Amino acid sequence: MTSSGTAPAYRRLSVGQRRAQLIREALTLFAHRLPEEVSLDDVAAAAGVSRPLVYRYFPGGKQQLYEAALRSAADELEQCFAVPESGPLSDRLGHALDRYLAFVDSHDAGFKALLQGGSVVQTSGAHAIVDEVRQAAADEILTHLGFPPAGGRRPGPRLHMAVRTWITQVEAASLIWLDEAKRPSAAELREWLVEMFVAGLAVTAGRDAESAAILGAALALEEPGGPVGALLGRLGPVLGSAAHLVQGQIGGGRAQ
Amino acid sequence: MTSSGTAPAYRRLSVGQRRAQLIREALTLFAHRLPEEVSLDDVAAAAGVSRPLVYRYFPGGKQQLYEAALRSAADELEQCFAVPESGPLSDRLGHALDRYLAFVDSHDAGFKALLQGGSVVQTSGAHAIVDEVRQAAADEILTHLGFPPAGGRRPGPRLHMAVRTWITQVEAASLIWLDEAKRPSAAELREWLVEMFVAGLAVTAGRDAESAAILGAALALEEPGGPVGALLGRLGPVLGSAAHLVQGQIGGGRAQ
Repeated sequence: MTSSGTAPAYRRLSVGQRRAQLIREALTLFAHRLPEEVSLDDVAAAAGVSRPLVYRYFPGGKQQLYEAALRSAADELEQCFAVPESGPLSDRLGHALDRYLAFVDSHDAGFKALLQGGSVVQTSGAHAIVDEVRQAAADEILTHLGFPPAGGRRPGPRLHMAVRTWITQVEAASLIWLDEAKRPSAAELREWLVEMFVAGLAVTAGRDAESAAILGAALALEEPGGPVGALLGRLGPVLGSAAHLVQGQIGGGRAQ
Repeated sequence: MTSSGTAPAYRRLSVGQRRAQLIREALTLFAHRLPEEVSLDDVAAAAGVSRPLVYRYFPGGKQQLYEAALRSAADELEQCFAVPESGPLSDRLGHALDRYLAFVDSHDAGFKALLQGGSVVQTSGAHAIVDEVRQAAADEILTHLGFPPAGGRRPGPRLHMAVRTWITQVEAASLIWLDEAKRPSAAELREWLVEMFVAGLAVTAGRDAESAAILGAALALEEPGGPVGALLGRLGPVLGSAAHLVQGQIGGGRAQ
């Protein structure tokens, strides 16, 4: 212990730098422990400052610091989604998912606690930030599908639902993945999620002309032997064995 | 108003009947208003009893009554999932979804408030009940796929993830459906969700022998011209236009 009356030797930081440092330390702590297991003293200790100094920056205490850390994590996560608008859509989605799963991997405990709910820190503020991230993910996907948020053209309800429910599926898959000790591998999970997106869009395209046009445009960007081709190759035998279910048959032939 | 000092003329009910009545009235109120807009006085008025009587049955006040109403709704919902183990799986899933969507329709505000979170009543007790319903839905589906909970045989991680993430997708679709003034129709939403299940299982079957065997057995129960056949018929042109992506081609022919 330092002798009483001696202030810790703080590094000189600007107000902005100190605030950023406290948020960074808080995020590291909240990433790997349950929110109820992180105290302001822990944050102060990790940052090498006193508890009153933490309170000076975050008068709302732990709840305020939690939401600031969450805000910072949300910004980081939204950066993960941004990929260049070129190349096959399956590659773009795969890149964004790689970064997203790396984020989930490195913030595992905090990610679970946040999304599984029931914690003391589950305020409406925290929920609003989570919803904003979901919205950002949907906006990014829709931008790649030809509907930039500022573009004025909005997707119809069926396409919108396909995109939004896939995002929920990704979230649920991430939580299950964490519960299952991160198995199967992140790479396999990413590939499966890309395929689920393609399959969901195809199902929706079967009922909705807009989605069919979007899917057609997306397929035109895919490369032979790429992930969509690999998926179709693997689905071929499955679909072939079900060809007799189609009235009028597919492709004129019944599978052996 | 009754004159002061006159106790309301309660109907004579047994303790169990009275408790059930209070829960029923509370559930009706919580179904159509936000939790914060329902007071114990409202429940007392709806049941035709005094506020102290409500407290006698629910000393924990509104929170306890909310969780009891949620418990009752969860039991009702779990009954929705139970369908006979015969006939095509797409029909069984469709029946369960019909009942589920009718439940969502008739408990709309409460359903949204519960699942969107951020409300004062979002305790760990409420979360545990919601998770239990999700687990019951997964158990029911897995039973129909040949994995009854008591059967000892457990599904592998890939099949399990496909089922669990589809349930999340159903939940998200229900919330979006409520936000979109219940459009498209419940019938269309149900059909789309059944198709999403089939497509998700097919994608998973492409990577997992267990899921492929389960899908094969499920397809054998489907009827020509049924929902799966209709889906495949609609997907035919979509898949055909992507056949050139498959290395080695599907069915030997490139689409025009």
